[in-house]
Amino acid sequence: MDQILLTKLSRVYNPKGNILHGIKKSDNGFVTFGEAYFSTVKYKEIKGWKMHKLMTLNLIVPNGNINIVTMDCRRTNLTEPNVMSFQIGESNYMRLTIPPNIYVAFQGISKETNLLLNIADIEHDPNEAVNLPIDSFSYDWE
Amino acid sequence: MDQILLTKLSRVYNPKGNILHGIKKSDNGFVTFGEAYFSTVKYKEIKGWKMHKLMTLNLIVPNGNINIVTMDCRRTNLTEPNVMSFQIGESNYMRLTIPPNIYVAFQGISKETNLLLNIADIEHDPNEAVNLPIDSFSYDWE
Repeated sequence: MDQILLTKLSRVYNPKGNILHGIKKSDNGFVTFGEAYFSTVKYKEIKGWKMHKLMTLNLIVPNGNINIVTMDCRRTNLTEPNVMSFQIGESNYMRLTIPPNIYVAFQGISKETNLLLNIADIEHDPNEAVNLPIDSFSYDWE
Repeated sequence: MDQILLTKLSRVYNPKGNILHGIKKSDNGFVTFGEAYFSTVKYKEIKGWKMHKLMTLNLIVPNGNINIVTMDCRRTNLTEPNVMSFQIGESNYMRLTIPPNIYVAFQGISKETNLLLNIADIEHDPNEAVNLPIDSFSYDWE
């Protein structure tokens, strides 16, 4: 899979507490299962940039709201990225699929908990990730 | 896998927001991947009883705290269950693995969001689940 995908997710109302869909093995964007982990990001804080050389990310924000920014330099160079941003979470409940070799950073938008679940197709491996300082790409963060 | 497993999970401190481990494909208790979904449960509300005939549940509570009660009648009958309870969440960050054919109910313990992630080995299928009224088993809920 080569493209960034944004997929609407369902929330099923229940008076005792809702059900929130995440990802099924038959869903578009699912590759295989390697690891599920959470990343939290505090209000206004920014985490990034990180690029995974092998991992496809499937990102879901069940609590709060997070602005996820991608810099795609796969067909260009680091100075001419293809920039996209996706604000997902409780206000816009979507799953964001990010294939390998795209730089990603994200910022906490809500004052309460901003919780990101990544359903990754490989287990965590620091050797397949590249980190760049946040000023490596220009983006007008809030 | 036949047994209920309770596995300690790591939280990695980060000043911008912590990383919370969930499950890896190589972890004890992982069978295969079918679906990931969230269930929320409000303060004092109880969801259950539900028994999955085929699904192994891997339950993680990244926000809030949930009391998960299991009634295991696999080697007895419905009137003599083997009762266990597990309070997991922010105060006790653990993963609970529940094999098929065990009745489960859970209650929200925190006044804020109580969020449960299930990493299930099959996709949702209402035909493989059995629901019983909450008074089918006696348990001293809060």
